[in-house]
Amino acid sequence: MIKTPYLLFLGDAHDQLAVKVAKGVRDWRPEYAIGQLRLPGCKGDLGLPDMTLDEAKEAGAETMIIGVANRGGLISESWKEIMLEALDKGFDLASGLHKLLRNDPVLAEKAGKLNRQLIDVRVPQHEYPIATGEKRSGKRCLAVGTDCSVGKMYTALAMEREMKKREMNVDFRATGQTGILITGEGVPLDAVAADFMAGSIEWLTPDNDDDHWDLIEGQGSLFHVSFSGVTLALIHGGQPDALVLCHEPTREHMRGIPGYKLPSLEALRDLSLEMAKIVNGNCKVTGISINTAALSDEEANEYLAEVESRMGLPTVDPYRHGAGRLVDALEEI
Amino acid sequence: MIKTPYLLFLGDAHDQLAVKVAKGVRDWRPEYAIGQLRLPGCKGDLGLPDMTLDEAKEAGAETMIIGVANRGGLISESWKEIMLEALDKGFDLASGLHKLLRNDPVLAEKAGKLNRQLIDVRVPQHEYPIATGEKRSGKRCLAVGTDCSVGKMYTALAMEREMKKREMNVDFRATGQTGILITGEGVPLDAVAADFMAGSIEWLTPDNDDDHWDLIEGQGSLFHVSFSGVTLALIHGGQPDALVLCHEPTREHMRGIPGYKLPSLEALRDLSLEMAKIVNGNCKVTGISINTAALSDEEANEYLAEVESRMGLPTVDPYRHGAGRLVDALEEI
Repeated sequence: MIKTPYLLFLGDAHDQLAVKVAKGVRDWRPEYAIGQLRLPGCKGDLGLPDMTLDEAKEAGAETMIIGVANRGGLISESWKEIMLEALDKGFDLASGLHKLLRNDPVLAEKAGKLNRQLIDVRVPQHEYPIATGEKRSGKRCLAVGTDCSVGKMYTALAMEREMKKREMNVDFRATGQTGILITGEGVPLDAVAADFMAGSIEWLTPDNDDDHWDLIEGQGSLFHVSFSGVTLALIHGGQPDALVLCHEPTREHMRGIPGYKLPSLEALRDLSLEMAKIVNGNCKVTGISINTAALSDEEANEYLAEVESRMGLPTVDPYRHGAGRLVDALEEI
Repeated sequence: MIKTPYLLFLGDAHDQLAVKVAKGVRDWRPEYAIGQLRLPGCKGDLGLPDMTLDEAKEAGAETMIIGVANRGGLISESWKEIMLEALDKGFDLASGLHKLLRNDPVLAEKAGKLNRQLIDVRVPQHEYPIATGEKRSGKRCLAVGTDCSVGKMYTALAMEREMKKREMNVDFRATGQTGILITGEGVPLDAVAADFMAGSIEWLTPDNDDDHWDLIEGQGSLFHVSFSGVTLALIHGGQPDALVLCHEPTREHMRGIPGYKLPSLEALRDLSLEMAKIVNGNCKVTGISINTAALSDEEANEYLAEVESRMGLPTVDPYRHGAGRLVDALEEI
């Protein structure tokens, strides 16, 4: 969908958090991250070579990724000049901003004239089918969470890296904007029309080799009332053989909805498995991924050990300890 | 959303099944159904007065409903002339066809010129919010099914009729095309973008009087892998106080997906209630609605008695026996 490799545009980012999409590309697809382009005053830095458009083109970059977010998801006027110049110099542009590139008349006109692509990863690029529920070949693993934003994408990408290291047959399947920008393809599930959600995930993870794993990026949570339907479509469309439970232990309520407490890992395990078994009777929960960023080393180790003994499942923070044990569990399926 | 009352356009329908949307209007909103307009060769008949456009306008009709479906959901060329004439004579047009009225250049141009509305009920007419999960006043009842197309809409409409007869404070809330055409408003949930599904149902069923009931039209089934996410969004967005279980006892597999058996009513009860309690701890299953159309009177009575004694809940076919006992159960909440 998006031509690689990339030049990562960091604009006039006012801090490092504003360039986290670009950081995702650098961390998980370093081979796509040719260089960075920063405007005067930019406070983001990925430690990549700073390049002009000409230098990046010379180095082989095909697409300039808008790797910076600002309040409101607008296309900042101060970015326009360089975006237009990038189109002139042969780049496509890709963005996850709320304001669509294609709806900017100046960008759209130039891209049309030069036959460049403006890729808005928030917008479905495909007409997805209605899900059939037919049994597919190959294997699929889905990360499910006690809440939104507990590390489901990170967990799947860390598992993918470990599986590639072991020369396993694997693909990470992006279902959100950041994942799509990182990997260059996927389904922006949050924007898919209700009737086609599960079908879009079947389309994303089709029949494959018997030893192949799709690692499907999770979204939302069955327990998050704003987005639970999206999560259930992922489970039923994804037809998973393995589920990995994801959790952030210091959160006091569900993200964005203060009246709602997080469920226990036991409740997540039971409800997710019950739902998955509707579509795949052999589905198993194979491991637990905990985001311990808010804990000290000692607290993290204690917490992980406690969960592991309580749940009887390999329990790790893939950021601190790698995803090896989560992958070991998949190798046993 | 749609101006009432209606003239029901039956076109050149080749059988009675092809006019079932119009029949829904006649059955459930007879006060909106001023008359029918049939083209030569029409095999559908609602038993309403046949009217010309002029007669219907004279009788007060505001909108001509395209109450006929054909293969592919196209706008038949043979309907065009009368549709254009209807616009000329002051009617709006409303349709649930797959092909949108607004995308027909001739219809769109005339409607624009005359300032008439072309209402395609398949298309969301509103920007819905993301669900907040905040506790709402008033009460809500949702029909959930072991499968798609087991009578959820019928059940809610029959309950609404009975509740109005008892002078209860009630609204039927449409979530599908037919329901929207019948009542003139609602949310076409199947076409809403994933992230806004639950929010659209919160929007549809806002805070209300303490004694008010919203009867929310159900969609899909938690057990139907193609559409389960839509159903879960209805449960979590709808925040129901009461659930009515719906079932068709002769179906051999889930609609459209032959590999999948229907769940038991017990499984439907348990999973639906578990899901509903995430958003409303006081939710109850209050009754069971069985579509016994395929059974004889005796078979139906036996089946209903067996289910009622097994499940311990009022069990009726509202078509055969009315919705009185389902409403009795709501009056006890």
